[in-house]
Amino acid sequence: MTKPITITDVRTILTAPEGINLVIVKIETSEPGLYGLGCATFTQRYLMVATAIEDYLKPFLIGKDVSRIEDIWQTSMVNSYWRNGPALNNAISGVDMALWDIAGKRAGMPVYDLMGGKAREAAAVYRHADGRTVNEVEDNARKFIEQGLLYVRCQMGGYGGRLHDIRSPEGALPGAYFDPQAYARDTVKLFEHMRGAVGNEIELLHDVHERLTPIDAVRLSKNLEPYRLFFLEDALAPENVDWFKVMRQQSATPIAMGELFTNPQEWLPLIENRLIDFIRCHISTIGGLTPAKKLAHLCEAFSIRTAWHGPGDVSPIGHAANLHLDLSSYNFGVQEWWGPQDIIYEMFPGTPVLTNGYVYANDKPGLGIDIDEKLAAKFPCDNTQSVRPPSWTTARTPDGGSARP
Amino acid sequence: MTKPITITDVRTILTAPEGINLVIVKIETSEPGLYGLGCATFTQRYLMVATAIEDYLKPFLIGKDVSRIEDIWQTSMVNSYWRNGPALNNAISGVDMALWDIAGKRAGMPVYDLMGGKAREAAAVYRHADGRTVNEVEDNARKFIEQGLLYVRCQMGGYGGRLHDIRSPEGALPGAYFDPQAYARDTVKLFEHMRGAVGNEIELLHDVHERLTPIDAVRLSKNLEPYRLFFLEDALAPENVDWFKVMRQQSATPIAMGELFTNPQEWLPLIENRLIDFIRCHISTIGGLTPAKKLAHLCEAFSIRTAWHGPGDVSPIGHAANLHLDLSSYNFGVQEWWGPQDIIYEMFPGTPVLTNGYVYANDKPGLGIDIDEKLAAKFPCDNTQSVRPPSWTTARTPDGGSARP
Amino acid sequence: MTKPITITDVRTILTAPEGINLVIVKIETSEPGLYGLGCATFTQRYLMVATAIEDYLKPFLIGKDVSRIEDIWQTSMVNSYWRNGPALNNAISGVDMALWDIAGKRAGMPVYDLMGGKAREAAAVYRHADGRTVNEVEDNARKFIEQGLLYVRCQMGGYGGRLHDIRSPEGALPGAYFDPQAYARDTVKLFEHMRGAVGNEIELLHDVHERLTPIDAVRLSKNLEPYRLFFLEDALAPENVDWFKVMRQQSATPIAMGELFTNPQEWLPLIENRLIDFIRCHISTIGGLTPAKKLAHLCEAFSIRTAWHGPGDVSPIGHAANLHLDLSSYNFGVQEWWGPQDIIYEMFPGTPVLTNGYVYANDKPGLGIDIDEKLAAKFPCDNTQSVRPPSWTTARTPDGGSARP
Amino acid sequence: MTKPITITDVRTILTAPEGINLVIVKIETSEPGLYGLGCATFTQRYLMVATAIEDYLKPFLIGKDVSRIEDIWQTSMVNSYWRNGPALNNAISGVDMALWDIAGKRAGMPVYDLMGGKAREAAAVYRHADGRTVNEVEDNARKFIEQGLLYVRCQMGGYGGRLHDIRSPEGALPGAYFDPQAYARDTVKLFEHMRGAVGNEIELLHDVHERLTPIDAVRLSKNLEPYRLFFLEDALAPENVDWFKVMRQQSATPIAMGELFTNPQEWLPLIENRLIDFIRCHISTIGGLTPAKKLAHLCEAFSIRTAWHGPGDVSPIGHAANLHLDLSSYNFGVQEWWGPQDIIYEMFPGTPVLTNGYVYANDKPGLGIDIDEKLAAKFPCDNTQSVRPPSWTTARTPDGGSARP
Repeated sequence: MTKPITITDVRTILTAPEGINLVIVKIETSEPGLYGLGCATFTQRYLMVATAIEDYLKPFLIGKDVSRIEDIWQTSMVNSYWRNGPALNNAISGVDMALWDIAGKRAGMPVYDLMGGKAREAAAVYRHADGRTVNEVEDNARKFIEQGLLYVRCQMGGYGGRLHDIRSPEGALPGAYFDPQAYARDTVKLFEHMRGAVGNEIELLHDVHERLTPIDAVRLSKNLEPYRLFFLEDALAPENVDWFKVMRQQSATPIAMGELFTNPQEWLPLIENRLIDFIRCHISTIGGLTPAKKLAHLCEAFSIRTAWHGPGDVSPIGHAANLHLDLSSYNFGVQEWWGPQDIIYEMFPGTPVLTNGYVYANDKPGLGIDIDEKLAAKFPCDNTQSVRPPSWTTARTPDGGSARP
Repeated sequence: MTKPITITDVRTILTAPEGINLVIVKIETSEPGLYGLGCATFTQRYLMVATAIEDYLKPFLIGKDVSRIEDIWQTSMVNSYWRNGPALNNAISGVDMALWDIAGKRAGMPVYDLMGGKAREAAAVYRHADGRTVNEVEDNARKFIEQGLLYVRCQMGGYGGRLHDIRSPEGALPGAYFDPQAYARDTVKLFEHMRGAVGNEIELLHDVHERLTPIDAVRLSKNLEPYRLFFLEDALAPENVDWFKVMRQQSATPIAMGELFTNPQEWLPLIENRLIDFIRCHISTIGGLTPAKKLAHLCEAFSIRTAWHGPGDVSPIGHAANLHLDLSSYNFGVQEWWGPQDIIYEMFPGTPVLTNGYVYANDKPGLGIDIDEKLAAKFPCDNTQSVRPPSWTTARTPDGGSARP
Repeated sequence: MTKPITITDVRTILTAPEGINLVIVKIETSEPGLYGLGCATFTQRYLMVATAIEDYLKPFLIGKDVSRIEDIWQTSMVNSYWRNGPALNNAISGVDMALWDIAGKRAGMPVYDLMGGKAREAAAVYRHADGRTVNEVEDNARKFIEQGLLYVRCQMGGYGGRLHDIRSPEGALPGAYFDPQAYARDTVKLFEHMRGAVGNEIELLHDVHERLTPIDAVRLSKNLEPYRLFFLEDALAPENVDWFKVMRQQSATPIAMGELFTNPQEWLPLIENRLIDFIRCHISTIGGLTPAKKLAHLCEAFSIRTAWHGPGDVSPIGHAANLHLDLSSYNFGVQEWWGPQDIIYEMFPGTPVLTNGYVYANDKPGLGIDIDEKLAAKFPCDNTQSVRPPSWTTARTPDGGSARP
Repeated sequence: MTKPITITDVRTILTAPEGINLVIVKIETSEPGLYGLGCATFTQRYLMVATAIEDYLKPFLIGKDVSRIEDIWQTSMVNSYWRNGPALNNAISGVDMALWDIAGKRAGMPVYDLMGGKAREAAAVYRHADGRTVNEVEDNARKFIEQGLLYVRCQMGGYGGRLHDIRSPEGALPGAYFDPQAYARDTVKLFEHMRGAVGNEIELLHDVHERLTPIDAVRLSKNLEPYRLFFLEDALAPENVDWFKVMRQQSATPIAMGELFTNPQEWLPLIENRLIDFIRCHISTIGGLTPAKKLAHLCEAFSIRTAWHGPGDVSPIGHAANLHLDLSSYNFGVQEWWGPQDIIYEMFPGTPVLTNGYVYANDKPGLGIDIDEKLAAKFPCDNTQSVRPPSWTTARTPDGGSARP
């Protein structure tokens, strides 16, 4: 039996090239020059993830055989007895993606070829267009359309937020205010406008971002039916997922759900009961490529498509992992995409490229992406964004209550 | 309007008086001498919890009104956008319990009196008796019975584990080996013996500790019916909870579940479908007293009783919180209890006391418990237990696969 | 972009080294010396499979990129518009396994390493012990136990068959006779004997082979409970799978099902409703490694284990494919194994080896198995076994009716 | 006891009078001049069916009593152990229909009279009108209406297909491209136009041909409600049939399903849960008249009507069999009909005749149809259509993925 290649180091790289704190895991091996990279980004609690990797996963993993990806995933998951949650899952994801990257490099094959090869040429993506008025949203959407985008997600006015509210403002807790009813009304108007403006060839999407009560979300999904959304995203908070049964009885608007999921019990009932149309988990937050590939297969059995979460707080490594899944999954739907700044392509050579509405993967071994660590070090993370979180995470209802972000 | 009392500091105290790493949160306030204590113990990943508190919750909470317990819980939970999981929930629990402690102290009342007052005098508890043979288990159980215990949980032979297995051990991965079938057979024999030995007046319990495949757990619950268990605990891993439907069709053995739960989607379907008889979450791991009191209320609506998790990796503060819930909940069932060493009563004055099978609360304001920080500092935590985890967390099946702990 | 490696030939090899007609697919590629092997054995209709491959799949596949395994599977499946069924699925399986073999060879890695690596050291297997009396069965079982087997499947008297039956035999249709009631009674006696004879350390299994009416199968599963089967296999014919709901309400005997399945609608409801404990499809008959890996993942989400069909009419290539799945699947249960004659190891170098109750894989690239085509040609297939099928496939009930085999 | 009439030969006749490969089975008997004809047409894999008949069914059946239709069906089905699938079922169908034809001839009665006699005078049929524009479809529909047709199925633009797509075509896999969203939008417009053009007296139907994702099919069925379809056909692929639950909650458009079904588990849940309104299996592909008559009876119990598949790749023998079922079934709905060329009536004397919207059966014994074998031999089958399948079977989505045909 050949001597196995083993893990010699598990390193955490923290960097914020676009001002968003990212967590990258680099696994080094007993084979000189062979290493793998994974995304472990839980931007809101990145220091917790770093602790999980440095103090717990690293000593657990040193010396282990890099080929045993499944076994490492399973044993890492139960090693803390309590499992799941965004912090632990992200830490495990960083390791898991890095091990798949290593497997691809050992094979001399892209990870998508380890997973059955390309089932399509490229991944169609959507971008996010917002604005304060319907015309501003339209203008921003048109910019994407001119670039070749076929799918555009539209949002107006920061979820109905207002700068100040409540009748006795001095008694109010600090924060942004959010009016769910105003938001729902405005959103219907927005899509009436947008569908008229861009015609039928462009797919329109919308993200509720868990801002509505269950019945308001049901009502919105029904009121949006005439505008033929490609999908309605995160219409309910994860605490409310059983309400999708009600939504399903009332509306044929396609439902995409999952960026906040961290636990299989959140998605399994939705899938087995065919209550959603697109699964859109944040793959590092469910634990990496290993569980995401299984989840794609689970969804395929139920004819549910994938639309993995892909905002700016997924690192380029994570975006590459998304893309490898997209290309190799029969039941791929669409991919969320952000607008990487130039620094991204410099710091992460091999970051996938958007061309005419589609993102293409390169054919390098592994995930096909690298990191310039020296450059990364010039963009240190800054935890003060957690100390002073953006107002949308502390939004309140007009009466001063807490509004879920 | 009176000027509110605000949070001035959130401190994390790490201590291991019994060799188990504990995490305590101490909240200091703008009122001189007024502080609260909470349990945030996720012993397997205590440094992650400490990071969550120090780097994230503390800056978020400084200056907030201590009376707003509900609002602080809700906003803390969504402040990281992704929520739940054992690390984040424990951090929030530390704060939450401390705020209830403060509320009680401000009121000059025990927390149980803020929660509706004593619905009983004391909480009946169970202790854990194990051994390598049925006679050893019997001997250990008898010691508890002689101390007045009415409920004894019995376990033999470390879940059927063997020190070495697989026929070609040189090919095996390191770790302890576990034989689920041997364990299930032995457990039936154990309870046949125990019921004969101790008669019917003593309640016997058993903890599967998620060691069985679903159908083996169903079969065990059925085979144990003749021995009239008070309950069968953690018969299924949290990944398998939907299998309680199958168990329910086949067996009338009462089912207790929940120590590993971290997400409402794990418990809600079990409760609304009446698939369990006792909820036994680890209350710091679901986020503290605030969610635990709500969970007790939810269970009462479905006539399910409480049996909160209470092993040695719940700090004495956490045990006190359990007890305040036990006493004030109409639907209390039984309380797990560990055997505190003397150092515990020294370091945590006010730790509840076991007398003749029941644990009693004192009538001091708040949670009625304090910490001697100087003494705590003499028992520093040691992270090497994570680096070299106890063998039961890395158990393997006889073929070298991973066995869920 | 690198020029892809393409399929240059798809060849069908028919051979019967043990007297059982086997179908092997060999895919040759544009890279000199690079080829793959797959199992396409539907022994009862092997000429149909050969036609499917030679006349349909081969022209469809020539020139296609060998890396596009998923796409080739999906497009092959719908290329005939009507899909599924044992003949078409086996043909596609031959291609699919061969493409995974090629992928592993290109990577220089065993197929199990493309699928996440070993999640265990080896696969525990069961063998089949039969006999005309309980003592004969015991003797045959003991031979296996002495060889180190931990799992033995027991069967007595050819499913209760009798040489002749019916009151007016001259009016009966020709064939073997089968008495379901006698079979069920004898089987309970057999396991009462066997459990007493071999004790508890050996796992006993039983295969009903779809010989019972639904309620008789339910009754048998209940009557066998005291003997603690590891599982009861194919208790119901595929036409009756909805009756597992009834069985589940009555018995905790673990249920294994699937060797006759050819269509996802046969297994999906059983899995999503947790009505079985082991999935044991014949992986070539569901279409190869691609659907089998997805099915393993689907089952993992529902905590159902795998026990892939592994009799003598799976070719050694198919047995190797089973083993690669077994080793890389977290939710592996047990593997059926046959007793290969020496000719098998000569004709198929790399055939997995049974040692002390476990089957081990080698670490060669791909499936790790080859075929000596010249030797194979010396054991030509013989279709007369179809013309004169073994009596068990034409069994009849005592009244002359057709009894499902 | 009379000496039974036995099967002396089972012959396969392959012919392509309209350019579509047909498979006919001719059973010859021990009674001179007595023979029967059946349809076994799986046009896409006709050589597999021929192999199944020649090499397997024929030797199994020679010498068997022609009166034992039920027994022959059951034993043929399990004779290969694995059963079902389009190839095996068609082979068995050829035999089964031929035996019914023989039974009718022996009785001197049409098959419909063996099945309870005419429950109606004739079968109303629908024909398929397509076109590139709404006006072209209208023109083609009007031609049918002028011929007396009361039911017309409408289709525009080849399911939204485009000749070329994806922005970088050089990277694309070869094949036609299909845009599900464009197709769905255009279809709503088509029926808005058609209902306006032809008024309410004509029944309009539509065939989705499994081209849509589940939620898009739900949405289409809902959007088509205002145009009062007689039924919506094959709205979901057979892999997705559980999604009819979702469709049922949202839309009252009548649902017809089944041409791709080959396995009872595909139709049984739809029927027992009343999720469809018309069963429209391809009767040779489910195994012939024996299972189709049972399926009609099952549907009658649930008030579901029949609409058997009847395109050009059903042979005239198969069309005759459809008609005998139509006439004798209480729960007949409508019959799909193709436009036979003159050669059909020459080669298959007795082929049913369309008159003023209804197809009429003759009153000859058996199926009432014959074949001119000499003429048939002049139209040999050509397998190159399998080698170069029509583009619709290899359709792709705009991103280069596989689109189900």
